[in-house]
Amino acid sequence: MAAQKPSIPKGTRDFSPTELAKRYFIINKIRNEFTKFGFQPIETPSFENYDTLMGKYGEEGDRLIFKILNSGNFAEKVDPSDWETKNVTKLTPQISEKALRYDLTVPFARYVVQHQNDITFPFKRYQIQPVWRADRPQKGRFREFYQCDADVVGSNSLWQEIEFVQLYDSVFTQLNLKGVTIKMNNRKILSGFAEVIGESEKLIDFTVALDKLDKIGQEGVINEMLSKGISAQAIEKIKPIFHLKGDFSQKITTLKTILQTSEIGKKGIEELEFIEKSISVLPLQTAFLDLDVTLARGLNYYTGAIFEVAAPKNVNIGSIGGGGRYDDLTNIFGLKGISGVGISFGLDRICLVMEELNLFPSEISETVDVLCVNFGEQEALQSLKLIQQLRTLGLKAELYPESAKMKKQMDYANKRNIPYVVIIGESELEKKSFVVKNMQTGEQFEHGFNQVSISTFK
Amino acid sequence: MAAQKPSIPKGTRDFSPTELAKRYFIINKIRNEFTKFGFQPIETPSFENYDTLMGKYGEEGDRLIFKILNSGNFAEKVDPSDWETKNVTKLTPQISEKALRYDLTVPFARYVVQHQNDITFPFKRYQIQPVWRADRPQKGRFREFYQCDADVVGSNSLWQEIEFVQLYDSVFTQLNLKGVTIKMNNRKILSGFAEVIGESEKLIDFTVALDKLDKIGQEGVINEMLSKGISAQAIEKIKPIFHLKGDFSQKITTLKTILQTSEIGKKGIEELEFIEKSISVLPLQTAFLDLDVTLARGLNYYTGAIFEVAAPKNVNIGSIGGGGRYDDLTNIFGLKGISGVGISFGLDRICLVMEELNLFPSEISETVDVLCVNFGEQEALQSLKLIQQLRTLGLKAELYPESAKMKKQMDYANKRNIPYVVIIGESELEKKSFVVKNMQTGEQFEHGFNQVSISTFK
Repeated sequence: MAAQKPSIPKGTRDFSPTELAKRYFIINKIRNEFTKFGFQPIETPSFENYDTLMGKYGEEGDRLIFKILNSGNFAEKVDPSDWETKNVTKLTPQISEKALRYDLTVPFARYVVQHQNDITFPFKRYQIQPVWRADRPQKGRFREFYQCDADVVGSNSLWQEIEFVQLYDSVFTQLNLKGVTIKMNNRKILSGFAEVIGESEKLIDFTVALDKLDKIGQEGVINEMLSKGISAQAIEKIKPIFHLKGDFSQKITTLKTILQTSEIGKKGIEELEFIEKSISVLPLQTAFLDLDVTLARGLNYYTGAIFEVAAPKNVNIGSIGGGGRYDDLTNIFGLKGISGVGISFGLDRICLVMEELNLFPSEISETVDVLCVNFGEQEALQSLKLIQQLRTLGLKAELYPESAKMKKQMDYANKRNIPYVVIIGESELEKKSFVVKNMQTGEQFEHGFNQVSISTFK
Repeated sequence: MAAQKPSIPKGTRDFSPTELAKRYFIINKIRNEFTKFGFQPIETPSFENYDTLMGKYGEEGDRLIFKILNSGNFAEKVDPSDWETKNVTKLTPQISEKALRYDLTVPFARYVVQHQNDITFPFKRYQIQPVWRADRPQKGRFREFYQCDADVVGSNSLWQEIEFVQLYDSVFTQLNLKGVTIKMNNRKILSGFAEVIGESEKLIDFTVALDKLDKIGQEGVINEMLSKGISAQAIEKIKPIFHLKGDFSQKITTLKTILQTSEIGKKGIEELEFIEKSISVLPLQTAFLDLDVTLARGLNYYTGAIFEVAAPKNVNIGSIGGGGRYDDLTNIFGLKGISGVGISFGLDRICLVMEELNLFPSEISETVDVLCVNFGEQEALQSLKLIQQLRTLGLKAELYPESAKMKKQMDYANKRNIPYVVIIGESELEKKSFVVKNMQTGEQFEHGFNQVSISTFK
């Protein structure tokens, strides 16, 4: 067989030990906080039945779902006329009955419905697994990436929104990523806006345009609204929301005026006010809570609270987390009236932010603490005895596998940034001792075989 | 949209919090020992290029690899005559350019070749990721399952085989799974057998038959060998290997006689003897090392040591781990002369064995330590203040999200096996106190708000 030049599919990544040390650091912190907040892990299969995923993410989503080709003779039972006309839309479900998970929310909804009799509600679950999308790869966008989600289903309580604000704060505090802004909005506020301007049936167009305020400015938003048939008069009424000023509670005060005639709008204000008041007496550790009425994320299924987390102001990157409440998530699988609320952490972006701000602690490292140089059979055997003791003490230790030249073994230690090298040569063997070399300072100390202590390697 | 009855593809699994608590327990122990032994993690994409995987696992393997259907108009550029004749063998590579990983070894070989300039050799990597096979699902065999592999590439040293024996011993000791047997063999021993009976060209047939001794007995093995054209005379010569007696070193002694005329056989003995002698002075903690000349696992690429781990004798399950040395693994991707040796842990089977032997510690649990009952707004707010303190102390704590009836909240605590319930009602709020109820004993104690201590919940 001719040798193949190795490569990986576009949009995918290999992760090296150095990269994984960082990713595991973040994932462990997230997992730890999820657990402390009472969330329990679940895992779902990488592929779901074709019908479980299709039709849940809109037309664009359907296109971006990776389908798995049926095993065996996939062409056998295909409709002959679809085959002849190469009608790929009709052929796809006939030659593919499985598809790779596109997010963690739909599989979670499927899980809840399928296992409803084994679940104690309210059910707080977290899930940290990869998802796949056939998106065009670009900087920071991949075809395989991890999602880290925490959701609660089975309760409408606003205490859960409060817990999610605290959870965001706790995770980013644990990561030493201080000064993130947790932005909140509420679908009911957006419905209220559409109502007071008399354009309730244009809610989606209205919010999609409003969501772009950051990017295209007030002028741009207004033009888009006009182009969607929202009247200039209506827009005039809503202009104050383009420059809401002050902190969360000051914005609430302004909104009370704007939305005074909308019942649903006032309900949204009430919910946000409850959250803000509670958080003010349960102060956040390092994050800020803000109200952003332009937030609309995934409006298609959010029905109440909407969350988005922005990195600290000195980092120019999009959101590093988001979420919201969806009142009827499991309905697509036949279980009605189960409200859910959840948030997600953007692992890749959090990693980028932490690199940019140099926030990874220097202790995280993929290397061993101690390398034993290999001088031959008897010396290596004695080294392995020492290594066993070091590992029992919790140290990461290894033997260089061959009795190669000293320089080669030291080069290996240097390239791998191994902090301590242990030398047991012929004379040490005789003296029943080992030499420890600190690779940073160059200092060397000799110890007896019976003087193995963790403090020697600190 | 009509509601769908939810299900998952056959051969796949949802994992509940209870199941994951057990799996994470095992994975963490394995990961921890990998790290202590100096192995570094890598991760590779879930799907590889079609050509990277195809042709690496034999015809059967090719069939069992899940292929991903190309996105967009997959039928567009297909050869018209292949389409017309529905030649699926030829069509598959035209409509699929990616496939799901079938194991971790081939992606690792690809990784090493692709990143050879960034790697310091010898390279010790571990990898814990799912793999996918379109096998017929049956008890204990799944279409998606985890592999946990540790390999070293870039050295021929037998010290590595010794480290792998120690690694198996350490992991199973940490899991409290005592008394496993690490069985070893060597491809060179098998080649030696074939040589001394004058059937070197029938090595594969010979070893495939020998490998079945456990299952079909001596009679069965002999019949299979005869049916493959190995002469009765030749088989007669080799009969002593069907009932090798004694411990590792006694078997070695017998083998020295049987293989005295085979250079390669003697080399195999020498390798195994070196390992056995070294382990005898670096005693294993809880595992046994044994020699099993019938072991042949994946002979297609193993060239030296062969490993297999058997569960303790009182558990009737197949192997729970295996591995071996392959001298030229990366050659398929154009990098010659890189020897590799590695082992694998069978996560699913280890989990089954540990369940059967009741080895999971009672502390592993997916539940929270403390539930705070919710009596209304002011009480809940005070409870959240307490919960914040408990989480800072490292406890897992949560608030019941709604001020539901006391009975409902206590039922929730019982169903989730939550050991402590905290009660802050109106009177506690006045007294600035909280009541802790031990759900197992039913005992209750009252504490002041300023008396929050971890010892209250032990």
